[in-house]
Amino acid sequence: MADQYAQTPNGSEPPRLPSLRWEEPPEGPVVVLLDQTRLPAEEVELVCTDVPALVRAIQTLAVRGAPLLGITGAYGVALAAVRGYDVDEAAALLAGARPTAVNLAYGVRRAAGAYRVALEKGEGRERAAEAALAEARDLHREDAEASALMAGHGLALLDELLPGGGHRILTHCNTGALVSGGEGTAFAVALQAHRVGRLRRLWVDETRPLLQGARLTAYEAARSGMAYTLLTDNAAGSLFAAGEVDAVLIGADRIAADGAVANKVGSYPLAVLAKYHHVPFVVVAPTTTIDPHTPVGASIEVEQRAGQEVTELTAPPQVAKGAGVGGLPVAPLGTQAYNPAFDVTPPELVTAIVTELGVVSPVTGGGIAELCARSRRVTIS
Amino acid sequence: MADQYAQTPNGSEPPRLPSLRWEEPPEGPVVVLLDQTRLPAEEVELVCTDVPALVRAIQTLAVRGAPLLGITGAYGVALAAVRGYDVDEAAALLAGARPTAVNLAYGVRRAAGAYRVALEKGEGRERAAEAALAEARDLHREDAEASALMAGHGLALLDELLPGGGHRILTHCNTGALVSGGEGTAFAVALQAHRVGRLRRLWVDETRPLLQGARLTAYEAARSGMAYTLLTDNAAGSLFAAGEVDAVLIGADRIAADGAVANKVGSYPLAVLAKYHHVPFVVVAPTTTIDPHTPVGASIEVEQRAGQEVTELTAPPQVAKGAGVGGLPVAPLGTQAYNPAFDVTPPELVTAIVTELGVVSPVTGGGIAELCARSRRVTIS
Repeated sequence: MADQYAQTPNGSEPPRLPSLRWEEPPEGPVVVLLDQTRLPAEEVELVCTDVPALVRAIQTLAVRGAPLLGITGAYGVALAAVRGYDVDEAAALLAGARPTAVNLAYGVRRAAGAYRVALEKGEGRERAAEAALAEARDLHREDAEASALMAGHGLALLDELLPGGGHRILTHCNTGALVSGGEGTAFAVALQAHRVGRLRRLWVDETRPLLQGARLTAYEAARSGMAYTLLTDNAAGSLFAAGEVDAVLIGADRIAADGAVANKVGSYPLAVLAKYHHVPFVVVAPTTTIDPHTPVGASIEVEQRAGQEVTELTAPPQVAKGAGVGGLPVAPLGTQAYNPAFDVTPPELVTAIVTELGVVSPVTGGGIAELCARSRRVTIS
Repeated sequence: MADQYAQTPNGSEPPRLPSLRWEEPPEGPVVVLLDQTRLPAEEVELVCTDVPALVRAIQTLAVRGAPLLGITGAYGVALAAVRGYDVDEAAALLAGARPTAVNLAYGVRRAAGAYRVALEKGEGRERAAEAALAEARDLHREDAEASALMAGHGLALLDELLPGGGHRILTHCNTGALVSGGEGTAFAVALQAHRVGRLRRLWVDETRPLLQGARLTAYEAARSGMAYTLLTDNAAGSLFAAGEVDAVLIGADRIAADGAVANKVGSYPLAVLAKYHHVPFVVVAPTTTIDPHTPVGASIEVEQRAGQEVTELTAPPQVAKGAGVGGLPVAPLGTQAYNPAFDVTPPELVTAIVTELGVVSPVTGGGIAELCARSRRVTIS
């Protein structure tokens, strides 16, 4: 079953609902999603029996996070195939559910490709559907494996940078199991440190405007039994000044060929603070995040989001759905807001990039290129 | 009338309600406050006919901001005196309304002192009450004059630092007429730049957790017809990186003898960003903010506020009242939050301190001491 990859190996942690799982009850296969819009107040699962239900879940942000969206797209294609719906139509619907989500289209392409190849080989629709499902499970497993490898490499790096353990880690946004087929990226490293008794505290930036840190990272930290503390994004400076941060761990939305890192807005100020205070600033992301077609940070186009996310306050479950869902106005009507979705940290501020294939440090174009070459070799072999 | 000091000299700006005014309708004198808890949604005035009403307004944060609290305290004593209530009791009630507000106690002391001196001189209660009211009006006028002087010095400094005008100013928290007997501190400088056509844009940090930027500074900027844009605190980094910030202007809660500045949490990260980007970081505050008994920044005790301000979302009017007023939980129940009220910026990160008596730059203990000596001479003369 797909959800095996979401299990934690440590028996002492409470059971938790996987972000996504494939189930095959007698009535036919379904994709079951943990509804992230209702976290942390309620743990509610959405049972999707068809592609339109999955598309709705993607559009309302019940399921979110780059790698997890890819996995969702792949299972969505498998669901259509196994249930005998039109696979091409399903693939188009899914890939278009959030047009800017590159991973979603990638996952859809992988499962639909496997289905098509099987058909072209003369295998029947049933065998082709099995191939699509196997591909979705492969993608799920690959992502879980990448998480585990990043966690291992990341912890080794922390132990090297900060001998003596007792790490106090600051993180931003949400990078755990809720965005991944496994345990995530930056959060997975902190979780690994926690499991081996070397995490003293996880400092959780609330991450305005959508509060993914307060809502989701705090939820994952609480579920894992970590010592964690929430803070407003602007209080991080005081923590650095007080010497309370040993390292910053964040994820990445995209990494340029020169090592510049696009990530949730608020990452760059943390990088500047970390530099000023001589604290390591570590980015954890799978190699699929590296975009060799983006030469430098300046070529990354920054998405500007709706101003209402800033000018209105919305509480869960609405907060996760973004603007225009009936928030309470905070600023005067007509106030214009600057609301970039992410920012770009130049490579000279990044101590290391941790991937499933190893660590790049110092972060240079050459180091990134070497890693990509290794990644291609792995793919070819 | 007291409210004369709150008027703007520029006829093109819309009339606005003063934050505080003394009125004498036929039924007897009253202190009229603009209820800041209802901004920006509604402009509602609270008419306080007695000291308990004023105490309630102070405690519910209908009136707030260090200098304005001092003025409120002084008028409160005058109100009790003119209406024939027990002045000592009124002074004790007012001074204790928010025990940590140093300016409140100062304003109360000044008006009560004037009342007592008049009585001791053998003048009757009526003349003594007039003396208390005159003292409140003096304090109000002094604060308004200090605002105007800071605005002038601040604008001259900006023009010197940034020749060519078209200033794009980033500010944090709320430092305008809502906290002052005049037009405030940092905001007053931006307003002056706007009036002479040299403000290109005011970037307004929302200022989590209580959102004074989004609620109050945006309100003041909108009322003044400025070009302003709101942003989450963590988006400031992107603005610096894009070269969109020419200077940072903030106020101060306390300035140590070495020039270290305690101000609303989030100021220090801005100072580090400004340093990294070679952007001037300017503090605007009256000399009464300088505390010669605090030798260095490290001796400033940082107030930790309730975690609910971070773990719960509250919309206006509740948001201004702080924690425990029935906010909607955002983080998991039981989440601990780190919520310092302010942070401390060391003098080496401060380009200049602008006061009513002039500008200190570079910011050194010697420069601060010289300014304080000048301030004492002014007081003595």
